[in-house]
Amino acid sequence: MHTRHTLVLTAATLFEQRGFARTRLSEVSSHAGVSSGALHFHFASKDVLANVVQEYSAATLHRAASDARDRSDDALQGLVDITHAVAARLNTDVVARAGLLLDWDAAWEGGHRLGEEWRDCVRAELLTARAEGALADEVSLADIEVSVVAVTTGFEALARQDPTWLSHQPLTGFWRLMLPQITAPAWTAPTDPAGAPVHRQEREEAAPRRALAAAGSNIGSYQVS
Amino acid sequence: MHTRHTLVLTAATLFEQRGFARTRLSEVSSHAGVSSGALHFHFASKDVLANVVQEYSAATLHRAASDARDRSDDALQGLVDITHAVAARLNTDVVARAGLLLDWDAAWEGGHRLGEEWRDCVRAELLTARAEGALADEVSLADIEVSVVAVTTGFEALARQDPTWLSHQPLTGFWRLMLPQITAPAWTAPTDPAGAPVHRQEREEAAPRRALAAAGSNIGSYQVS
Repeated sequence: MHTRHTLVLTAATLFEQRGFARTRLSEVSSHAGVSSGALHFHFASKDVLANVVQEYSAATLHRAASDARDRSDDALQGLVDITHAVAARLNTDVVARAGLLLDWDAAWEGGHRLGEEWRDCVRAELLTARAEGALADEVSLADIEVSVVAVTTGFEALARQDPTWLSHQPLTGFWRLMLPQITAPAWTAPTDPAGAPVHRQEREEAAPRRALAAAGSNIGSYQVS
Repeated sequence: MHTRHTLVLTAATLFEQRGFARTRLSEVSSHAGVSSGALHFHFASKDVLANVVQEYSAATLHRAASDARDRSDDALQGLVDITHAVAARLNTDVVARAGLLLDWDAAWEGGHRLGEEWRDCVRAELLTARAEGALADEVSLADIEVSVVAVTTGFEALARQDPTWLSHQPLTGFWRLMLPQITAPAWTAPTDPAGAPVHRQEREEAAPRRALAAAGSNIGSYQVS
């Protein structure tokens, strides 16, 4: 792994543990096992480093979402699959989590607005699902959008203190309650609240990586886009 | 208003704006217009001050929840009313918000676990609602609990960047989708997703206070329990 990537991974881990304000560049370099000079060669300041963490996070989450969507036959199942794919990615990838966390960090005033991109993504899938005839006519798109954005934001926030909130079960429970209410009676393709089977398989494959991460090494779960 | 209360209000405002790590006691005293000595007379440290903010926040939110519950005839409407009452209180009360925010602040390692108390409150209402016969048999209590806790946590988190997330509309939209799915077919007391009428009246009364808060003065919205 290149020095730059080690530094991004180390910074993400420290941002998550301590917040932006209390993370020092000198700790990032010492935890990463590189010299202070090497760190400054790659990153001129803590702000630059935090921006790169957010860029990696955005790229990783975009890819997880678009891969999930590409495999789905319709937009309603696609939206369910995207939420599971993003949760699974957050569950295993400290850089993805740290990028989102920075958006909430009162001490960080930089860049990305991952939350707004997420809302746009949810809205786009819902518009397509309505056009495809998957959604019940009497149900308000705005109600669904607001509920899905809030519940997924809640899972991410709650997982900061208890990672099981980003596991498969809670999100499946939400969709189990929501899908019967929002699906059009005439819609014949049943939507799986647990996500399409291919994602379940990936989740099982991801389990050893998660165990590795829990054991203190996040290296195995981190891939630069 | 007593000096102590002014200091708590000022600290809450600064914690919300800057986070715990970047708030200095010297700023709290100067923003509150009191001497550094007076501040230290009331609060020995920033940790003590943050703990008091959380205690006020917990007391305020508990009271809002129990007042709402006392006025509800059954537990399902009670749960809906509690969520609206807590959201309305957070919307208008910077000390209530700051107490919750501290729970999420990576730089704060103190006291209260308001999130766990909230989950216990939701679970207790759902258990009573099931005993009262309001909930459909085939619906899992765990699914409802997880969804309600996640969605309300999400509204609170999203409101940090856009306060309209804690307004009446989004929460009503969530309950509009959720209630038909979880209510027992034989349950004859219709549950109002917008909250019981008495709460709507209070919300309208709260509007001028909210306008005052938006104009830069939070004084009008703050009452010590």
